[in-house]
Amino acid sequence: MMDKFMQAAIDEAKLGLEEGGIPIGSVLVYKDEIIGRGHNRRVQSGSPILHGEMDALNNAGRQPASVYKASTLYTTLSPCSMCSGTILLYGIPKLVIGENQTFQGEEALLNERGVAIEVIHSQACISLMNGFIRDKPELWNEDIGE
Amino acid sequence: MMDKFMQAAIDEAKLGLEEGGIPIGSVLVYKDEIIGRGHNRRVQSGSPILHGEMDALNNAGRQPASVYKASTLYTTLSPCSMCSGTILLYGIPKLVIGENQTFQGEEALLNERGVAIEVIHSQACISLMNGFIRDKPELWNEDIGE
Repeated sequence: MMDKFMQAAIDEAKLGLEEGGIPIGSVLVYKDEIIGRGHNRRVQSGSPILHGEMDALNNAGRQPASVYKASTLYTTLSPCSMCSGTILLYGIPKLVIGENQTFQGEEALLNERGVAIEVIHSQACISLMNGFIRDKPELWNEDIGE
Repeated sequence: MMDKFMQAAIDEAKLGLEEGGIPIGSVLVYKDEIIGRGHNRRVQSGSPILHGEMDALNNAGRQPASVYKASTLYTTLSPCSMCSGTILLYGIPKLVIGENQTFQGEEALLNERGVAIEVIHSQACISLMNGFIRDKPELWNEDIGE
């Protein structure tokens, strides 16, 4: 059975796809509760910085360091340099990744800096990305700076 | 005489201070023109992701990789992990930093990844940050995840 938090991230990714966007979702979890959820909004908001993880953190609003340092970030896809840097800025200690097969971000850097990473290799996440990359390769390349 | 692009970044920082915010500003320059300008909006927008550099990139909107790869980012302060990760994501090759005395971000990582960095040691930038950190240390710590 899928972890409920990863399921919430996947639900966000699917919502993004329905909106015509990039299907990557994320939730920030503190004390077993979701305090921020989001999905990539490049298309919907015309934003180059609202990746799923960034949107989730933005929606969580301003939080004290103590909250970030006791939180876990769930994301459907391995985080890029921007999202990884944000994880480091706020000292989020734990990251659960849906999949890193269609794209691998800065897991090595995060690991080196002490972030605990769990990759669950979710077929649901892989399918979402494979379908999207096949249908809109230019949009995907734009999102990862290529 | 101050470089006109760094002056534009400083003007953004001062605007942020006038708004009651954190005085850090940034501009993205492509072909000798500013295509995005911004300043830290933690206070003004209640956003943990709108650092000055992020705001400038967001205001530049969606750009093709070819634009980022021929752009220079000016920022009044050494960029944190988040902003540095964003520079890496988009492959921005050149970074001009107002000062890195009050805070030093991920310059070593950026340098290692091939980003050309110039630090101009601007007294105007140092004064803005020193005054702000003295007046609002809690807000500053929140912004850098401490």
